[in-house]
Amino acid sequence: VQQGEQKPFERVYDVSSGDPHRVGMPPLTFIRQVLAACLYPDLLKDDSLPVDVRQRARTLLDVCEGGSVGSYSLTYSGIPLIQKTIAEFITRRDGGVESKPENIIFSSGLERALSLVLHLLSGGEGQTRTGVLTPVPCPHTLPMQLDEAHLEQVSYQLLEEQGWALDLAELHRALRTTRGRCETRAIYISNPGNPTGHVQDRKTIEEVIRFAASESLVLLVEEVFQDSVLGQEKRFVSYRKVLLEMGEPYSKRVELVSLHSLCTAGMGECGLRGGYMEVINMDPAVREFINILPCSGSPPILPQLALGVMASPPSPGDSSYETFMQEVLHVERTLSHNARRACEFLNGLPRMSCVPAEAGIFLYPRLDLPLGITEQAQMLGVEPDVLFCQRFLEEEGVCVGPGCENGQDDDNFHIRSAKPTALICVLAPPAALEEVLTRLRSFHLRLLSSCC
Amino acid sequence: VQQGEQKPFERVYDVSSGDPHRVGMPPLTFIRQVLAACLYPDLLKDDSLPVDVRQRARTLLDVCEGGSVGSYSLTYSGIPLIQKTIAEFITRRDGGVESKPENIIFSSGLERALSLVLHLLSGGEGQTRTGVLTPVPCPHTLPMQLDEAHLEQVSYQLLEEQGWALDLAELHRALRTTRGRCETRAIYISNPGNPTGHVQDRKTIEEVIRFAASESLVLLVEEVFQDSVLGQEKRFVSYRKVLLEMGEPYSKRVELVSLHSLCTAGMGECGLRGGYMEVINMDPAVREFINILPCSGSPPILPQLALGVMASPPSPGDSSYETFMQEVLHVERTLSHNARRACEFLNGLPRMSCVPAEAGIFLYPRLDLPLGITEQAQMLGVEPDVLFCQRFLEEEGVCVGPGCENGQDDDNFHIRSAKPTALICVLAPPAALEEVLTRLRSFHLRLLSSCC
Ligand SMILES: Cc1ncc(COP(=O)(O)O)c(C=O)c1O
Ligand SMILES: Cc1ncc(COP(=O)(O)O)c(C=O)c1O
Repeated sequence: VQQGEQKPFERVYDVSSGDPHRVGMPPLTFIRQVLAACLYPDLLKDDSLPVDVRQRARTLLDVCEGGSVGSYSLTYSGIPLIQKTIAEFITRRDGGVESKPENIIFSSGLERALSLVLHLLSGGEGQTRTGVLTPVPCPHTLPMQLDEAHLEQVSYQLLEEQGWALDLAELHRALRTTRGRCETRAIYISNPGNPTGHVQDRKTIEEVIRFAASESLVLLVEEVFQDSVLGQEKRFVSYRKVLLEMGEPYSKRVELVSLHSLCTAGMGECGLRGGYMEVINMDPAVREFINILPCSGSPPILPQLALGVMASPPSPGDSSYETFMQEVLHVERTLSHNARRACEFLNGLPRMSCVPAEAGIFLYPRLDLPLGITEQAQMLGVEPDVLFCQRFLEEEGVCVGPGCENGQDDDNFHIRSAKPTALICVLAPPAALEEVLTRLRSFHLRLLSSCC
Repeated sequence: VQQGEQKPFERVYDVSSGDPHRVGMPPLTFIRQVLAACLYPDLLKDDSLPVDVRQRARTLLDVCEGGSVGSYSLTYSGIPLIQKTIAEFITRRDGGVESKPENIIFSSGLERALSLVLHLLSGGEGQTRTGVLTPVPCPHTLPMQLDEAHLEQVSYQLLEEQGWALDLAELHRALRTTRGRCETRAIYISNPGNPTGHVQDRKTIEEVIRFAASESLVLLVEEVFQDSVLGQEKRFVSYRKVLLEMGEPYSKRVELVSLHSLCTAGMGECGLRGGYMEVINMDPAVREFINILPCSGSPPILPQLALGVMASPPSPGDSSYETFMQEVLHVERTLSHNARRACEFLNGLPRMSCVPAEAGIFLYPRLDLPLGITEQAQMLGVEPDVLFCQRFLEEEGVCVGPGCENGQDDDNFHIRSAKPTALICVLAPPAALEEVLTRLRSFHLRLLSSCC
């Protein structure tokens, strides 16, 4: 799009990333009030903010060095009281399976935490280079993160025809391909799946843990969408709960890193860049190393406070409870309505099909593009779904993600054999989503009629 | 210090790092008000906040995606309008020597930006490993950052007897030592000096630039204390101004990275973790690479907004101007009073001497420790100044930094020949500083009398 060029649309919609505020979802009031009061404690002097907001802000300021969000936290792991809050949240969520505060490590976003772990895993050259089993499709930032940490991506294909379920036989197959190619030392899991929306069941999780144990793999589990399982059929079960409930030898031996972030469906606070990881069975020397690793630095304070609030929201009886619950419910309802609506809409279009999402904020429709487009893409030297997305943006002002970014081939992630897909974030105000879908239909139909 | 142990002091003072809020310096009201309003825009609905705060918050929210600080910024460099604000600030500061917005790169703290650049410089093994000329003393986090990026530290000694000035002959000497040891590709400069407080003059800067040009070194210049030159004798001159005013070939050829952070004396907003770098004459391919490097991720929004406010404070006539100027003046007065007072005090103690700081927030006194302590330290296998600091903390509840962390030896930074020093942050409320000094005197005199 050229600067100043005339376009047939007034507003551009960017639904290519999991960033709900960008497309107009409002933040949760309680969290913003607490953070504002921590930044500017004069707000605590009168009663313009709810009493529980003021209490919470005071509690949080008490755990900041010198009572200010402007001081560094003392350790690279973060503020001890917030580590404790997170550990309690995890313990509660997992029905009493205890989480230890010292296993919680904060960072400026999940991406940062993951990058730290990936660098620790990295090593070797050629045949001894570290490999990481990676789902296809996977979060779109992952292939570059692996590459940047000099890790070999060992792809395992998720089963689209089974709602993007993970298949154990495929893990074994993928691992066999690495003989003489690299040393696979970890497996990356996204559950609920980004971008697939698939929710793994306990049986699958147990199988994966046994597989990781027998192959001595570290489990890297991203669980950002734990708060957004849609409908009643599925339930989120955490890998750590299953692992610790499996008992010995698994519970004492399998190394697990569980990652979470402020960019959940409910919070949507991507711009704050706050994340944490819980590390289980990590070698104490490695754990100690993380604590002193200068490249990580001490994590920023406000995102830690925000994570503390996420882990300990208002309770019944608190003055903010009603509003908070209403806002959370509003997000949940919007999300499940949108996910259902968009999926039906997409499946109603010719040469497009979409697996319903069980969780998360993405749809990941398959594009059965006509030969004309595929050939044009080949001529231009781009992936067909990249061309689709570029033209959609230019002609209709909507930015969706080319699915190839979620599923690069392992050997050379510029070339790929998989079929074209698109990534659409559906956590948006319904009117915005409707506009996106309408534009998608006119673009798609125009494209098909021009090619066929 | 054991948990629960009885101690002869009630409060612990930590003056070991440049973290003024920790020891009770208050934040600047304007910045906190603006950030609070950006987080919680309901504060814009009435007139409880000053009108210029509300205007500023609206302007800043306008440049956030979707009008929310909860959205990612679009690029890994940061928000374009804030890049522009920073570039204008630099241009103004440097008397019109133009800075380009696209050369500004934000990150979650200076440390992060530096770490990114160090990783880009890193390469080679053995004799071809990249080396970085590093001052001794240097910022205490630097040796670990170099080590973590697998860079060889090539130390050059600053001249204590000349107020910690940089000496060109010493640069040449240091570089000669690296023949057959590593390939030196950059020189790190801290100006005004952390921890020395020395302010470089234009002549020195020109010499260093010529040296960098002739030896093909990248200039890595940390200029955090540019806002805190004490007294009237010295003035801060930026490396970029001198470089660009020197004309060709220098102005077009020497690669320069200038680093700045929210943890200046005036702001003291360490916990927000906001920094930026300006890159000059950087290879376009490298610049492009930084823009897509996933390990950096998109920088958090609030620290960018804070940097924008730092670069564009209230102007005469704005409703917050008076308060803002009073607060800034208060910091400046406190700092210069404390720096003078502490320096005189330290020089009044036996076996202690201190170079007066021309800028910044640290004093870095030399400790002429008695043989008894040095031998005890040797027996315990620690540096003498580490032992000094440990015992001072245990006996008097004051945490100062062992100077050895600012000046490790290059070959093996666990062993060091230099004389013991201590690092003291003097940006603290005067009463707190007085308490620190009183405790330091009683500890130091007790130590001397027990040993001699
Ligand atoms: C692999 C990966 N990286 C990064 C993110 C974004 O998280 P954050 O903004 O906390 O870095 C996600 C979110 O799901 C992710 O799955
Ligand atoms: C080398 C170095 N690293 C880090 C810092 C701290 O800055 P920040 O908190 O922005 O990372 C400084 C500040 O002077 C520094 O000189």
